[in-house]
Amino acid sequence: MKATLYEGNKTFSVIEKEIAPPLAGEVRIKVAFCGVCGTDVHIYHGAMDKRIQIPQSIGHEMSGEIDALGEGVHGFSIGEKVVVRPLDNRAEKPSDKGYSHICKDLKFIGIDSPGAMQEYWNVPAFTLHKLPDHIDMQLAALIEPLAVACHDIRMAKLESGEKVVVLGGGPIGLLVAMVARDKGGDVIISEVNETRIALAESLGFTVVNPTKTDLVRFVETRNGASIADVVFEVSGAQPALDVMTQLSGIRGRIVMVAIHAQPRQVDLFQFFWKELQLIGARVYEKEDYEESIQLITQSKLPFEKLITRIEPLENIQKVFETIAGNPSGMKYLLNCQS
Amino acid sequence: MKATLYEGNKTFSVIEKEIAPPLAGEVRIKVAFCGVCGTDVHIYHGAMDKRIQIPQSIGHEMSGEIDALGEGVHGFSIGEKVVVRPLDNRAEKPSDKGYSHICKDLKFIGIDSPGAMQEYWNVPAFTLHKLPDHIDMQLAALIEPLAVACHDIRMAKLESGEKVVVLGGGPIGLLVAMVARDKGGDVIISEVNETRIALAESLGFTVVNPTKTDLVRFVETRNGASIADVVFEVSGAQPALDVMTQLSGIRGRIVMVAIHAQPRQVDLFQFFWKELQLIGARVYEKEDYEESIQLITQSKLPFEKLITRIEPLENIQKVFETIAGNPSGMKYLLNCQS
Repeated sequence: MKATLYEGNKTFSVIEKEIAPPLAGEVRIKVAFCGVCGTDVHIYHGAMDKRIQIPQSIGHEMSGEIDALGEGVHGFSIGEKVVVRPLDNRAEKPSDKGYSHICKDLKFIGIDSPGAMQEYWNVPAFTLHKLPDHIDMQLAALIEPLAVACHDIRMAKLESGEKVVVLGGGPIGLLVAMVARDKGGDVIISEVNETRIALAESLGFTVVNPTKTDLVRFVETRNGASIADVVFEVSGAQPALDVMTQLSGIRGRIVMVAIHAQPRQVDLFQFFWKELQLIGARVYEKEDYEESIQLITQSKLPFEKLITRIEPLENIQKVFETIAGNPSGMKYLLNCQS
Repeated sequence: MKATLYEGNKTFSVIEKEIAPPLAGEVRIKVAFCGVCGTDVHIYHGAMDKRIQIPQSIGHEMSGEIDALGEGVHGFSIGEKVVVRPLDNRAEKPSDKGYSHICKDLKFIGIDSPGAMQEYWNVPAFTLHKLPDHIDMQLAALIEPLAVACHDIRMAKLESGEKVVVLGGGPIGLLVAMVARDKGGDVIISEVNETRIALAESLGFTVVNPTKTDLVRFVETRNGASIADVVFEVSGAQPALDVMTQLSGIRGRIVMVAIHAQPRQVDLFQFFWKELQLIGARVYEKEDYEESIQLITQSKLPFEKLITRIEPLENIQKVFETIAGNPSGMKYLLNCQS
């Protein structure tokens, strides 16, 4: 079988190796497609070398079908289409209060253990979600990032008719915007990259480039004094933090989706004054995956527009170099069987 | 009648003036006691001169009895004991989403209009809450700050058995701690002032001086890996912001009670990673006042320990100078009838 390995130093290798049998409790998946996550790009840049056992296969945004069952695995059969919810919560403790998806000793499969950017992938059976047989396997590779968006929306307790601002129009930002609109939210997207702006507009969204237009004034003019009910911070940039509290109306909710590696300046006075809430949201829970699978299966929303390009597995190096040098692309998929 | 006036420049005057009749919809209150709020001290320091119509009476933490009824006031009678919920929400709009206590054009009585540090005080009748006749009028002057604490606890959705850390052991911090403990919370207080530490300890609280003890390690050792469920930030200081995210366990709630006038450094990564929530909490709603009145009336909790000193109205200048020069005092009351 073909496998890719992150070798450190912005380098991937492509190797041939033996197909391994699944261990007890595991299944072997024949991986169809695997998307490149922002986290994978962080890994490529070396930012997560402490967590990776170099050389290691990475990747977790995948679709595939069951190829072999390990000992003791029941309820699955060979040929079934599946996605993996890449959270290994076997070290969960009572102090995690039942939030197994963010338990303190969570291992993220594809980071803390080998990932899906290979032809075959062995994973614990408890991570699987079944897919309907007629599902599009390219779109199914979006189930993982879409589940992030479903989780964000659920954490926001978004209600139909609410005014939403999404700060950042990358893949997760657009998925959040699409789910929010599907739930009845009235969505404005803030994005600085013109190619991403054009894509978001082609999806029918109102998009503001905050480097050209006063975002707060735009939202106030459009929505009136209540401004926004829910703000999703997906950009990871300080200027977004500077406006998120201004964009929030009384008792507004701000969902923190982005990863801010360093402490940031936040206007806490606005939290006090308008009784705002900041809601941290990370990965997803089982129900978010089920909702994401439903959304992809229904094919009601134009998720295919988010797929920038599909490349064969062996082009992995080129794909990461392209993403690193091109902030306007959206979702790149690797075809793990070509 | 005797009245005090904030004259600007850290100066109060005490004057004699005519007792004014209440206007239509107003009552005249014979003020019994009026506490000095942190906001009043801010006013004394000149920090709110833009909102004050100098010279102006200030003060809002009061108890009193009805002395006269203006035209059209029903449901009240002369001699009834009352407190004022000093929120004038008559400019509330639909964009305030029903949160009248923090409506955008809220006027705070005692800041944006004359306050209670005088012998008689005219206020709109809709601000009144009735008190039982046997209530202690000194303790009743604590109903307003206690309602702040009740609101903070309610916003936190505190449940019995939860681990609580209160950052800051001043008057509001101690009231939050007392109400949290009364609700079944397991409370640790962080405070730097030794006199305040001694007072909190005399109330039976576990108190940590974070300049002498590693607060995070202390809480971890005592509470285990779940650390704290709810953190109340009441200190207004950057070091408290630095630890609040560390003190919060998975899905912990941080209630922002303090006023941070400038943008502050916040570790947003922890919000993402542990799915923390930051909950802004300001003033109080009707039900918080009712709960506060109940707590004071029951006299189950030792609120009297928070009263540092009671001084006659004419000593107002000395009282503010004392508070400004003495960070270890708690609640000072003015006796408005002596």
